[in-house]
Amino acid sequence: MIKVGIIGATAYTSLELIKILLRHSEADIVYLGTRREGSNKISDIFPILTNTFDMSCSRLTQKDIPKDMDMVFVTLPPAISMQYVPGFLDVGVKVVDLSADYRFQERSTYEKWYEVKHTDPSGLDVAIYGLPEIFRENIKKTILVANPGCYPTSAIIGLAPLVLKDYVYTDDIIIDAKSGISGRGREHKEETHYCECNENVEAYNVGEHRHTPEIENIISLIGKSEASVCFTPHLVPMNRGILCSIYVKMKKRISDEEIIAIFNGFYSKEPFVRIKTDRKLPKTKDVVDTNFCEIAIRVVDGRVIILSSIDNLIKGASGQAVQNMNIMCGFKETLGLSS
Amino acid sequence: MIKVGIIGATAYTSLELIKILLRHSEADIVYLGTRREGSNKISDIFPILTNTFDMSCSRLTQKDIPKDMDMVFVTLPPAISMQYVPGFLDVGVKVVDLSADYRFQERSTYEKWYEVKHTDPSGLDVAIYGLPEIFRENIKKTILVANPGCYPTSAIIGLAPLVLKDYVYTDDIIIDAKSGISGRGREHKEETHYCECNENVEAYNVGEHRHTPEIENIISLIGKSEASVCFTPHLVPMNRGILCSIYVKMKKRISDEEIIAIFNGFYSKEPFVRIKTDRKLPKTKDVVDTNFCEIAIRVVDGRVIILSSIDNLIKGASGQAVQNMNIMCGFKETLGLSS
Amino acid sequence: MIKVGIIGATAYTSLELIKILLRHSEADIVYLGTRREGSNKISDIFPILTNTFDMSCSRLTQKDIPKDMDMVFVTLPPAISMQYVPGFLDVGVKVVDLSADYRFQERSTYEKWYEVKHTDPSGLDVAIYGLPEIFRENIKKTILVANPGCYPTSAIIGLAPLVLKDYVYTDDIIIDAKSGISGRGREHKEETHYCECNENVEAYNVGEHRHTPEIENIISLIGKSEASVCFTPHLVPMNRGILCSIYVKMKKRISDEEIIAIFNGFYSKEPFVRIKTDRKLPKTKDVVDTNFCEIAIRVVDGRVIILSSIDNLIKGASGQAVQNMNIMCGFKETLGLSS
Amino acid sequence: MIKVGIIGATAYTSLELIKILLRHSEADIVYLGTRREGSNKISDIFPILTNTFDMSCSRLTQKDIPKDMDMVFVTLPPAISMQYVPGFLDVGVKVVDLSADYRFQERSTYEKWYEVKHTDPSGLDVAIYGLPEIFRENIKKTILVANPGCYPTSAIIGLAPLVLKDYVYTDDIIIDAKSGISGRGREHKEETHYCECNENVEAYNVGEHRHTPEIENIISLIGKSEASVCFTPHLVPMNRGILCSIYVKMKKRISDEEIIAIFNGFYSKEPFVRIKTDRKLPKTKDVVDTNFCEIAIRVVDGRVIILSSIDNLIKGASGQAVQNMNIMCGFKETLGLSS
Repeated sequence: MIKVGIIGATAYTSLELIKILLRHSEADIVYLGTRREGSNKISDIFPILTNTFDMSCSRLTQKDIPKDMDMVFVTLPPAISMQYVPGFLDVGVKVVDLSADYRFQERSTYEKWYEVKHTDPSGLDVAIYGLPEIFRENIKKTILVANPGCYPTSAIIGLAPLVLKDYVYTDDIIIDAKSGISGRGREHKEETHYCECNENVEAYNVGEHRHTPEIENIISLIGKSEASVCFTPHLVPMNRGILCSIYVKMKKRISDEEIIAIFNGFYSKEPFVRIKTDRKLPKTKDVVDTNFCEIAIRVVDGRVIILSSIDNLIKGASGQAVQNMNIMCGFKETLGLSS
Repeated sequence: MIKVGIIGATAYTSLELIKILLRHSEADIVYLGTRREGSNKISDIFPILTNTFDMSCSRLTQKDIPKDMDMVFVTLPPAISMQYVPGFLDVGVKVVDLSADYRFQERSTYEKWYEVKHTDPSGLDVAIYGLPEIFRENIKKTILVANPGCYPTSAIIGLAPLVLKDYVYTDDIIIDAKSGISGRGREHKEETHYCECNENVEAYNVGEHRHTPEIENIISLIGKSEASVCFTPHLVPMNRGILCSIYVKMKKRISDEEIIAIFNGFYSKEPFVRIKTDRKLPKTKDVVDTNFCEIAIRVVDGRVIILSSIDNLIKGASGQAVQNMNIMCGFKETLGLSS
Repeated sequence: MIKVGIIGATAYTSLELIKILLRHSEADIVYLGTRREGSNKISDIFPILTNTFDMSCSRLTQKDIPKDMDMVFVTLPPAISMQYVPGFLDVGVKVVDLSADYRFQERSTYEKWYEVKHTDPSGLDVAIYGLPEIFRENIKKTILVANPGCYPTSAIIGLAPLVLKDYVYTDDIIIDAKSGISGRGREHKEETHYCECNENVEAYNVGEHRHTPEIENIISLIGKSEASVCFTPHLVPMNRGILCSIYVKMKKRISDEEIIAIFNGFYSKEPFVRIKTDRKLPKTKDVVDTNFCEIAIRVVDGRVIILSSIDNLIKGASGQAVQNMNIMCGFKETLGLSS
Repeated sequence: MIKVGIIGATAYTSLELIKILLRHSEADIVYLGTRREGSNKISDIFPILTNTFDMSCSRLTQKDIPKDMDMVFVTLPPAISMQYVPGFLDVGVKVVDLSADYRFQERSTYEKWYEVKHTDPSGLDVAIYGLPEIFRENIKKTILVANPGCYPTSAIIGLAPLVLKDYVYTDDIIIDAKSGISGRGREHKEETHYCECNENVEAYNVGEHRHTPEIENIISLIGKSEASVCFTPHLVPMNRGILCSIYVKMKKRISDEEIIAIFNGFYSKEPFVRIKTDRKLPKTKDVVDTNFCEIAIRVVDGRVIILSSIDNLIKGASGQAVQNMNIMCGFKETLGLSS
């Protein structure tokens, strides 16, 4: 049984972390830290936890964090996260960071897109991008995992088999993504008002969403050549779920059946990837509340259309974070994550 | 053609006012006032109006409002509204006030429930409660209409025929109301965050909602005896619409058919009240975007159940406000309001 | 480890049963029966189960059901269920029946409200109404549990403490219930079309819903006098969740604090009942996906308002069914049910 | 005042037609035909029309349709529509057909995609594709308009300026479309069950939606070369609205400003096209209930992203149908269509 802390306990992703860890047979939550003033029990913040998990939150200050834990999940916003992470690493606490602060090998890419100076470059050097389907071996050995963004998780799992096998042009990738509103976070602002979101679909951050370089980086790495991604996220009126519709051009002619076989082969041992067969298509409601990524692939006129869906809060955040913890700690990878 | 202004132009109710007035053959919007800084065109605030109505908003200050209008709709919050209304009345501009500031004949009731001193008692003396179905003759003659609250509109229209004819006990009325989220206003706060409202039903302000005394006052007036109302509002995940489920006890035995006949008789000349027959029940979606109040009545074991539905933003606010304007100005009552 | 079957595997409640039983450490699903033709794997019917639980469904005929199980959950419609239940009881398989077929001690009440002759009166004699908070001791000893209806579960748990202690008049109970659309079942008809349900609230079956006599029966039993309930269900646009707003009159004057103390006392040992304190109110989203019933109580002008919320598919159906199984089999009552 | 009939009165699009025509100062609905048995008043089918428009529907048979009208709107399904249209044309009644039956100049394309023999080839010869922004002059002179599909309307208006001016490659167009559920029609089937649609996003008919050839045909015509379109429609949980996200490659380098200037020029005189400026993006809620098509254009890395939104039931069906009627009859084009 390891001792686990959550740093930034009031985020939507933290509620999911708690729910998963309560089912986890090898991890015990021992600390909940929050920057909010005046909060006390976590079940006051998330009443669904009442009588199930009523632990008190601690006021988070950089100076005074208990370090007697084995592992922490950091769910703080970007730029804040890197102020806390080094302190844990220094005393031997492993970290899964859910912010973007450690996702980029190139510090300059981070600084350009997040418009802030990176204050922990040595952390960048040790951090591993926590997509188990691609980087499992490295995750096993690291003390710091940069948990991937929600859109990149969905997009990269959808693209990896074809990119790795060089079946598609990586300089001409279009990703049209649809996300539930929880992807916008818990902050209340005009964009998250019920009447602004409900009965509405819209694109946002067209051509400038910060997940663009994250996807490009990893696809470049996998494909061993500079990738160029046109990424357009949309908000749809539902709480959670992401569907990425990915359009790529093929280098080689190939049939629907062959391409599905490639995916089935590539992911045959993966516990959380499902490939649709029989011409069925993924629905986000079939992955919500699970750690699965569900994928369908179609060849249409020499183009491949990949439909990849996840729960943005589970496989796109907290579920994957626990999957990473399981790998880092040598646990069975599905612990806490299979319903 | 009369000249009309909207004082508080950025409220959800103001958008509805504008949409209705644009269809109105006898009224011209000439002024839009807002307390917001930095706003300019109304179509920047409500993009749905782009190319249809792009009038500029004026910054609202108490000192400096143009008075060369025939009529203003005031959509400011309670306590603010009464700071502006007297200025218009003084120079002969008629007012329909959509706040609660002029809805109570008893100043003390207002001050108790709204926790603020009333600064315009002389306005209170001239104001008429703007429910045309009950007070049409008085509305015709007044210069100041206090436009009813959304819940009271639905509840009082549902109760009036039985109360007036003394068929029910008015000291034992239960009103269980369900409202769409726009009833909470346009402000963004935790309660109006999409993920807090969506996939959720909840009661709020149980036993202490400010519409309770408003309903009690008018029912007391109609029934000529002190009414006591147990009013419980609920939020349901939709943009607009109100359904009041009203439970009253009968003084006299009566059948479903007789009671429907009473309602049909009472409202036979009303352009905006529909009584359901053939055991059908109202759906809020059938009144949304209309000025109708739709009512079904059932007798069950000596109790009457009244189901009364309106669009909270139309019959519950802006539609009724224009209906009042039509009456005050001698126009056909349905102008701008029939689809 | 006991062997469990689900008879009627394609209902929404069966999906929830499966999800719960997969987490259950003492029960193994060994049989899935369905009356649907041509279906095969349960994960084809509920794709969310793919790779998690891909068991094949068996075509259900009355003649030919495997009986080598310890327990079955019957999720067939009323009138159909009682055709299958006796066969299991005969060979010693315990039954939790989720239909209404065994909920009434008085056969005549069932036959009046369900308009069908009861074909298994001897089953009626042994069946126990499966509300653990009230009938736990009887459930322990029975072989046939009639799992309560969703509305009755929420309503009775909300009423029981005050009824048992004779604090309220049971001949004057008003229950205004709000339910998500899954309460209407999986059948597709005009009433469940997305565009008919979405952005709409409506009452249905006013004065004639079949859960009325079910609630009256149990409240009469608890209160030891004939109860009369005015029950009005409403549909709200969300997938799941029930909120009952219950209005009762008090026999004795009592404060909010005292009444909350009564509830806290009555349910102090219950693992799945939560009483709200600090004037907080229940939200259905805080019980969805849990087996909790969450209750707030308010005294307003000599009347008690009880707000009681559950997940209609969990505490209102499948969660409670597993809770009953746990009790019948001597397992820890919360097995499979605490997140 | 012209006399107008609706052939297929119970479709969702017919309700919208009725609402628009009731506001229309030059058209009078004189006939409502339906193939449904036993229906009578249109307000029984659409209760929102009660007291506003209670006309009786007539049972539709091919033999016996009144022909003393000036114009009919045919809202029957494809393959059925062409059985009724010739009868009207023969006696001089103008037709706007909302089905796909007359949208294809090439009969073979229709027969391939709709899998039915075309029974009215002479109708095909006279029909004009009713997209006023492109074919206004032809619409003026025709007696038969093929009203465009909802997705093609949104897509073609978004593409036309760049295609006509030869700025983009038309053999490499990707259209990722999102639609509300009303786009699936009024029929109740598993796919339109509330609980299947709500809290879900999914793609459907990938690579095989019938609007693909419709878009390709018109773009080929405008661009004067064979177009190839990859069209992927998605369902999102809302009643109405379409957003097309269109990805095209540029033949010439051009800036955001220049491209917006091209759109503004092209559509400068169009009453129902709005081009977003100031880097704002369209929201479907801002065009719902209007006849507007709202468009934003962005240049990202040599690619153009066009976001085009309409109300699928108004500009994508009934609003455009009335716009076509206005053009065919020489009325002001915006009659009945400006709020």
